[in-house]
Amino acid sequence: MTEIQVNKVGKVGVLPTDKALGFGKIFTDHMFVMDYTSGKGWHSPRIIPYGGLEAQPAMIVFHYGQAIFEGMKAFKTADNRVNIFRPYEYLNRFNRSAKHLCIPEMDVEQIHDALIQLLTLEKDWVPNQPGTSLYIRPFVVADEPHLGVKVADSYRLFIILSPVAAYYATGFNPVSIKVEDKYVRATKGGLGEAKTPANYAMSLAAQQEAYAEGFGQVLWLDAVERKYIEEVGTMNILFKINGEIITPALNGSILGGITRKTVLELCRSWGLKVTERQISIEEVFEAHAKGQLEEVFGSGTAAVISPVGELSWKGQKIVINNNQTGEFAQKLFDYITGVQSNKIADQFNWMEEVK
Amino acid sequence: MTEIQVNKVGKVGVLPTDKALGFGKIFTDHMFVMDYTSGKGWHSPRIIPYGGLEAQPAMIVFHYGQAIFEGMKAFKTADNRVNIFRPYEYLNRFNRSAKHLCIPEMDVEQIHDALIQLLTLEKDWVPNQPGTSLYIRPFVVADEPHLGVKVADSYRLFIILSPVAAYYATGFNPVSIKVEDKYVRATKGGLGEAKTPANYAMSLAAQQEAYAEGFGQVLWLDAVERKYIEEVGTMNILFKINGEIITPALNGSILGGITRKTVLELCRSWGLKVTERQISIEEVFEAHAKGQLEEVFGSGTAAVISPVGELSWKGQKIVINNNQTGEFAQKLFDYITGVQSNKIADQFNWMEEVK
Ligand SMILES: Cc1ncc(COP(=O)(O)O)c(C=O)c1O
Ligand SMILES: Cc1ncc(COP(=O)(O)O)c(C=O)c1O
Repeated sequence: MTEIQVNKVGKVGVLPTDKALGFGKIFTDHMFVMDYTSGKGWHSPRIIPYGGLEAQPAMIVFHYGQAIFEGMKAFKTADNRVNIFRPYEYLNRFNRSAKHLCIPEMDVEQIHDALIQLLTLEKDWVPNQPGTSLYIRPFVVADEPHLGVKVADSYRLFIILSPVAAYYATGFNPVSIKVEDKYVRATKGGLGEAKTPANYAMSLAAQQEAYAEGFGQVLWLDAVERKYIEEVGTMNILFKINGEIITPALNGSILGGITRKTVLELCRSWGLKVTERQISIEEVFEAHAKGQLEEVFGSGTAAVISPVGELSWKGQKIVINNNQTGEFAQKLFDYITGVQSNKIADQFNWMEEVK
Repeated sequence: MTEIQVNKVGKVGVLPTDKALGFGKIFTDHMFVMDYTSGKGWHSPRIIPYGGLEAQPAMIVFHYGQAIFEGMKAFKTADNRVNIFRPYEYLNRFNRSAKHLCIPEMDVEQIHDALIQLLTLEKDWVPNQPGTSLYIRPFVVADEPHLGVKVADSYRLFIILSPVAAYYATGFNPVSIKVEDKYVRATKGGLGEAKTPANYAMSLAAQQEAYAEGFGQVLWLDAVERKYIEEVGTMNILFKINGEIITPALNGSILGGITRKTVLELCRSWGLKVTERQISIEEVFEAHAKGQLEEVFGSGTAAVISPVGELSWKGQKIVINNNQTGEFAQKLFDYITGVQSNKIADQFNWMEEVK
């Protein structure tokens, strides 16, 4: 176990009830912090009270965006244990993102240890109502103060924790999605497969326009031909066409979602035909015209599964499954959240208990 | 004039000599800060001691990169006056970048006022040796603490100042440039024409690889066909081919440089043929083969003009003007820096005196 200095808060906070939780607005009492200095490596791992940090105005992250993050979840069981969903998958992706951003490699075991220690301390902050969870946000920012585009010589790593409400408090709501034909999120040779602020900055204007037009999300197309499907704002996308599950292949410009991976593993174990390949928006519209587009859904850590009720592309709109949650999306959601909440046996070893 | 609260440092710092200045590492005693809150607008303009700011770990800028910046310069004249180079050009671009990032519009007059007041206070920090200047960095970060991709409801605007050394202390050094064929900086429908951290985050890996291969800079090609020339890391690029000045048109994926604009105005006023259009890397190599590629140079606020001595593309290398600074690049550099340092009459009204 890594030697971590712990500096506890004087008075611990109180976990609000489910309804007051929301998403990503409330934080637990403590956070994990670690520094990197060139020549010294990652050092000074510590758990300290959550709160303000001293930042220099010239920090490279503010100016040149050298930063990465992750987003995973922990759950409370009925008998008060805490389980994390696939932590190594997320931490390994964290390190892959670091590479894209020229951020020094981290020791996954060390971060994993730190996470376990932090979660042990913050156990009471993991909510236990159905659908709730503790959202875990590791992130790294370049904190060297320097106005010049360069790879920084110093970084700070954080793990912060936020108890989150049930995503679907009133049941699944199929979302209406705009297929974006003006803005582009990422391109081959860019940072699309990294979890880094740049990709989300890219999405803001499109998201705002889509909201204003009454859509709930944006579906991105490829940067070059503007016809191949990429992913949704913070979800991968999957299609059920004629009994087959089809999803865009990991082509370098989309994020390799852990939920996507989980869904594909599950579908394969259930004996479904699963295909990861290039798929164009025309193909989806044609499948719909032929009556073969059975379901469309997103996959992501926050919502797990998000059924898509409508797709609108250049003014043409298709309605999927009568704008109702598909049976298959429901089945996936029930299975994955069932394992997460410890109601279904963890056959695939997704869960790790915090001991 | 905007009412700005001023909180001065107890003891002012001392401007280091030229050699110790470097670029973007030393900051003046004070900075300008202003806040934005939804429903309230931009408020609380103030000048305070430069230094650490209280930042929340969940600030949107750290996670989703909602931020913009500018970079301009002020100069000291022989008779101790301070002149800013084209401040409105930079401040208007600042506002255009804000729009791309869904950051609330700023009142350019107010920021201009603030800049003048800050420069008046920091007058003694403007260096006066030949080639030195005071680099001005306005920037805005989304400071709302929220883990969810959205347009923030609160922002902070800063103006920080950094005295900088002469860029070419030992004369012009033509740079050797790698034409990048793997990585992509920006694409149409993306944020390429905004001055925002995302674009620089995109450039880090390519920059590192180019440095490792012995190049000084990267020249970006377009994202779609990977053949049309875009720009260099922090400069626009211009070609002198057969007496004509050719530079990529502002196509939405490159930054509209103020130095580029200045150079083009100047070239036109001198009666040269100036063309802003798509130009492919093949065309440049062909012009070189025909002996018509007279000069290549970059334009940007930091270096003003940067002659290019070599271009290397997929292993093929061309040497431009015998790897010597071209006559025309020198002429442009001398003229622009002459006006900036008040040695050449300011015919075009580029300079604004701080009164
Ligand atoms: C751009 C993007 N795509 C896909 C996903 C889904 O990935 P995961 O299932 O790992 O949460 C996310 C969220 O993490 C995302 O931000
Ligand atoms: C990407 C990029 N292109 C071009 C430039 C040159 O622009 P300017 O002449 O306004 O400094 C800069 C620097 O500001 C830049 O960062």
